Amino acid sequence: MNILLASTSTLFGGNYLEYLTEEIQTLFQGIEEVLFIPFARPGGISHEAYTATAASFFQNIGIRIRGLHEFESMTQAINETPAYFTGGGNTFLLVKTLHENGLMTTLKQNIESGKPYLGTSAGSNIGGINMKTTNDMPIVYPPSFDTMGLVPFNLNPHYLDPDPTLKHNGETRETRIKEFLTQNDIKVVGLREGNWIRRMGDRITVEGEHSTRIFEQGKEPYEIPSGSVL
Amino acid sequence: MNILLASTSTLFGGNYLEYLTEEIQTLFQGIEEVLFIPFARPGGISHEAYTATAASFFQNIGIRIRGLHEFESMTQAINETPAYFTGGGNTFLLVKTLHENGLMTTLKQNIESGKPYLGTSAGSNIGGINMKTTNDMPIVYPPSFDTMGLVPFNLNPHYLDPDPTLKHNGETRETRIKEFLTQNDIKVVGLREGNWIRRMGDRITVEGEHSTRIFEQGKEPYEIPSGSVL
Repeated sequence: MNILLASTSTLFGGNYLEYLTEEIQTLFQGIEEVLFIPFARPGGISHEAYTATAASFFQNIGIRIRGLHEFESMTQAINETPAYFTGGGNTFLLVKTLHENGLMTTLKQNIESGKPYLGTSAGSNIGGINMKTTNDMPIVYPPSFDTMGLVPFNLNPHYLDPDPTLKHNGETRETRIKEFLTQNDIKVVGLREGNWIRRMGDRITVEGEHSTRIFEQGKEPYEIPSGSVL
Repeated sequence: MNILLASTSTLFGGNYLEYLTEEIQTLFQGIEEVLFIPFARPGGISHEAYTATAASFFQNIGIRIRGLHEFESMTQAINETPAYFTGGGNTFLLVKTLHENGLMTTLKQNIESGKPYLGTSAGSNIGGINMKTTNDMPIVYPPSFDTMGLVPFNLNPHYLDPDPTLKHNGETRETRIKEFLTQNDIKVVGLREGNWIRRMGDRITVEGEHSTRIFEQGKEPYEIPSGSVL
């Protein structure tokens, strides 16, 4: 497999995908066209406008973008394209749309056969075993929380450390992930913004500017440095 | 109906339910025993310990607490008790447990017949039409997101205003609720900590120390003062 799962598409003060340019060029080496999956975007901008945003980054590196929503047979489009990018938004909406159109398994099989995959935020969540560690609001009811399992763990994108100054009684991210572990024996990778997961063949590493926080059942959460094998 | 749906159980620096003491005494006037529903709590503390926490507040105001988990027939316990309190925790776990044990409808019918109900946080979420505006992590998969609909809108407990200093790319609460409105035509009450909803008969008001933010399809979000009729 050849995949990149990023915490976020955009760093504070940066442009869309800019900080990942070199990584994306390596991921998609020799690829002329990438299929963009826009279904996480719940409104504000249309699938067309969202696809255009992605396309305007990719044209700078000589790659054409087609939006999955443009095709009459989405299954055929997934089977025929050489590479994929799923953008962020709402994970519930993305997972519902993929399952209801029978696309989750098709996508998984193509990626497992070696086609490169880029995900950001919600698009990274669906690379995990299930979507039960998303931060998103459950605005729609998906037929299942299962996702592609391209890596043998779950992700928490946009991982945020607790703010000790906050006078607020809502749960911290760490508390939420520990709650997940009371119900599920699945490792969770807390991926801070600026970090990403890279899988090349069987080797899975965590990359980027920060350390990464790992949560496992029966252990205290711990930090691993950039470049660590997962 | 006679219900109180609070944003949070505990204010910063305060004790459990303390700020609601007078309201709770009014709500449960003439009641000697309240059935406590502990199922939102995903771990850390057991159902017994959670029930004991609730009981230690209620004994100060002369009310006995029994935990729903103690009963062989939970349906019978719900039908026979004169009043209810559902505590906070994880809304997915609470809703899954209530649906899987066939208790959501039983509870709803008893409350609609006039028995007083207190909810905090996740316990307030289930008073809305559905749980699609919870802040919680989807750590388990409930058979449905539908809740009791004791009020004709949804709640967002622990409502938090955007922090303009945050250099983080995760969605704000307002963005998430606007995403909900792209998929659902249901009013959302953004309930800041320190605020609660009170229903007495057909009259529904919002109470507490702050104004309340209301979100509706096709309108800009707006604020209503404490005491407003919803």
